[in-house]
Amino acid sequence: MPNISQRGVNMPASPIRKLVPLANQTKAKGVKVYHLNIGQPDLPTPQVALGALKHIDRKVLEYSPSEGILSFRKKLVKYYHKFNIIVDVDDIIITTGGSEAVFFSFMACLDPGDEIIVPEPAYANYMAFAISSGAVIKTVPSSIEEGFALPSVEKFEELITPRTKAILICNPNNPTGYLYTQKEMDQIRDIVNKYDLFLFSDEVYREFCYTGAPYISAFHLKGIENNVVLVDSVSKRYSECGIRIGAIITKNKMVKENVMKWCQARLSPPLIGQLVAEASLDAPEEYMLDVYNEYVERRKFLIDGINRIPGCYSPIPMGAFYTVAKLPVDDSDKFCAWCLSDFEYEGQTIMMAPASGFYTNPDLGRNEVRIAYVLKKEDLAKALTVLAKALEAYPGRIL
Amino acid sequence: MPNISQRGVNMPASPIRKLVPLANQTKAKGVKVYHLNIGQPDLPTPQVALGALKHIDRKVLEYSPSEGILSFRKKLVKYYHKFNIIVDVDDIIITTGGSEAVFFSFMACLDPGDEIIVPEPAYANYMAFAISSGAVIKTVPSSIEEGFALPSVEKFEELITPRTKAILICNPNNPTGYLYTQKEMDQIRDIVNKYDLFLFSDEVYREFCYTGAPYISAFHLKGIENNVVLVDSVSKRYSECGIRIGAIITKNKMVKENVMKWCQARLSPPLIGQLVAEASLDAPEEYMLDVYNEYVERRKFLIDGINRIPGCYSPIPMGAFYTVAKLPVDDSDKFCAWCLSDFEYEGQTIMMAPASGFYTNPDLGRNEVRIAYVLKKEDLAKALTVLAKALEAYPGRIL
Repeated sequence: MPNISQRGVNMPASPIRKLVPLANQTKAKGVKVYHLNIGQPDLPTPQVALGALKHIDRKVLEYSPSEGILSFRKKLVKYYHKFNIIVDVDDIIITTGGSEAVFFSFMACLDPGDEIIVPEPAYANYMAFAISSGAVIKTVPSSIEEGFALPSVEKFEELITPRTKAILICNPNNPTGYLYTQKEMDQIRDIVNKYDLFLFSDEVYREFCYTGAPYISAFHLKGIENNVVLVDSVSKRYSECGIRIGAIITKNKMVKENVMKWCQARLSPPLIGQLVAEASLDAPEEYMLDVYNEYVERRKFLIDGINRIPGCYSPIPMGAFYTVAKLPVDDSDKFCAWCLSDFEYEGQTIMMAPASGFYTNPDLGRNEVRIAYVLKKEDLAKALTVLAKALEAYPGRIL
Repeated sequence: MPNISQRGVNMPASPIRKLVPLANQTKAKGVKVYHLNIGQPDLPTPQVALGALKHIDRKVLEYSPSEGILSFRKKLVKYYHKFNIIVDVDDIIITTGGSEAVFFSFMACLDPGDEIIVPEPAYANYMAFAISSGAVIKTVPSSIEEGFALPSVEKFEELITPRTKAILICNPNNPTGYLYTQKEMDQIRDIVNKYDLFLFSDEVYREFCYTGAPYISAFHLKGIENNVVLVDSVSKRYSECGIRIGAIITKNKMVKENVMKWCQARLSPPLIGQLVAEASLDAPEEYMLDVYNEYVERRKFLIDGINRIPGCYSPIPMGAFYTVAKLPVDDSDKFCAWCLSDFEYEGQTIMMAPASGFYTNPDLGRNEVRIAYVLKKEDLAKALTVLAKALEAYPGRIL
């Protein structure tokens, strides 16, 4: 039998999904599992999107253009305009989810061995796409004690080498919920400018900023317009993760041309997903407001709840719908697996994403988990009770 | 401005889609373009699939499992059984189109620098996925004069090095329409066995074999069950290329585990596409038979037509819905572009895929094109007339 790919063997499994088989076994035993591990909101997809799905009247479900459907891209121009992101229709290339947007951005901008600087903890799947593309991720650690604020410019500069090609940020941040300030974004702009780097900016959570502080897009930064490659997705804002529609937005002509080669190689993004996503852009203000208010409430409820459990701590996330919380455990990988395999409370347990998977340094995040507040409050309440009870019972508890 | 990826710059553009911008300009001038370039059938998607689309009754269009929806995979087990491909549900992993199936197969099995031997001409996008994964494609040329039959074992063995990890075939073949014989498949099996290689087998056109000769799946070959990684897609057989649903089928446990890491990194294949594809498996026999008969007729009509144009030659393709034809031109890249930019006949022109893009050797295929017979007969008739007239008018015609 031939050897399989060593790069795959060496790749850490996704912290978000690696415990799924264990969770499935647990469910098979009749235990209710609260999914705090994945950013899959329980909120409804907009009615206008579901309606569009029912009214697709095509005889042939054919390929769409490799760059995406024109009418959809035109509507996105207007959508971005509302956030003062001024782009042309040609600056927008539709991808199969934000995942493909990240991957194609890497493929278009980076050669094997090129380095990307990323503040960590960071969305774990960036690592997989870096490995796929042969790029190397270098991390600047942020810490829960400092509320996951952007590390100082010096910390970035320490990592700059002749192979440094890009900085990658996620704003508002997955997994921490941190929202970068104007001052922090200006710092990033200055480093990007000084070293002539690409700025990959994943801004899929822009609708979810809770503190009144402004959302600063990478496209709001002056003087680096040609360096910015924005990653987007409709998944989170319209609760339609399953349709797999994202986008790359860039004004850099050469990047666009390179991205298009990969787009043509995979032929086209999903047709039906694009039709649904296009319709979603017409979701009424009230839909967006209801969703927003729901997350505001859940956030408060979850963070208050976590901070009331002895030994637990979560900073207050300013955006997105995640938080990274510190738990009084020896090893959150073990604890998260144990919750699924060895624990239940009144027929229920919880699934969380161990935070170690969001750090490249194996010493970091060992007592942290990422919790997504994508469940309704009554379920969050039950999940918090289960968490408290699990921590009481867990043999690896640290006092 | 930072440099973009050199690997992207060096990658040849897709021969199937690179002329799309030119075609769009031509259409904008009011010229009708017959698309012979892409495997997008004009045949209807099965009614049962379109019906399922209309009756999706979900409130949240959520992520599906990374490996695909269980009920769909269970139905695929039965589908494959009809072709004497005996696999378990765990052997099937759903992907975003056949494209992702090829890419994840490469990522799971190959490390950068590993070599794949491919008979050429070959589906051009394999090359893009090889470049993405860092794998190296080595080609064994087949020729139009020999009807694109499999080259001899010796030709394969000449290319074997310590880095050879896999053989890749497409059967029935895109772009040539060739169908490998039992003897040829046995030869492939023997090489795979002797050198302990992976056999990547793209079999998306299995429904389309026209000569009565049997379709031999890689899974029919004895003794290499753990070496086979089958690539599949519902796109062609149900005329639903736009839903982006494919699959990897393998019995190799380690390959499956590695594939799943990449599947989890991209979270999930398209949800709605899977629901449509699952319904498509219930398409009645008559649908498949009608589609089959239609292609049989178109094939005869197209090949007869090509071979009647002075200086043109096409072998008779045994399967799929493409043929590679030889034209009396200096350079088919130039000719195909010229047809779009400088020629029209009664307000019509044709778009074809230059065959050079299906060869790695830049000297091969310069006077060949790939033609897809995915248009109805009356359109094929008009396209053939345009081709004949274009060849009469083309300044680079070779007598």
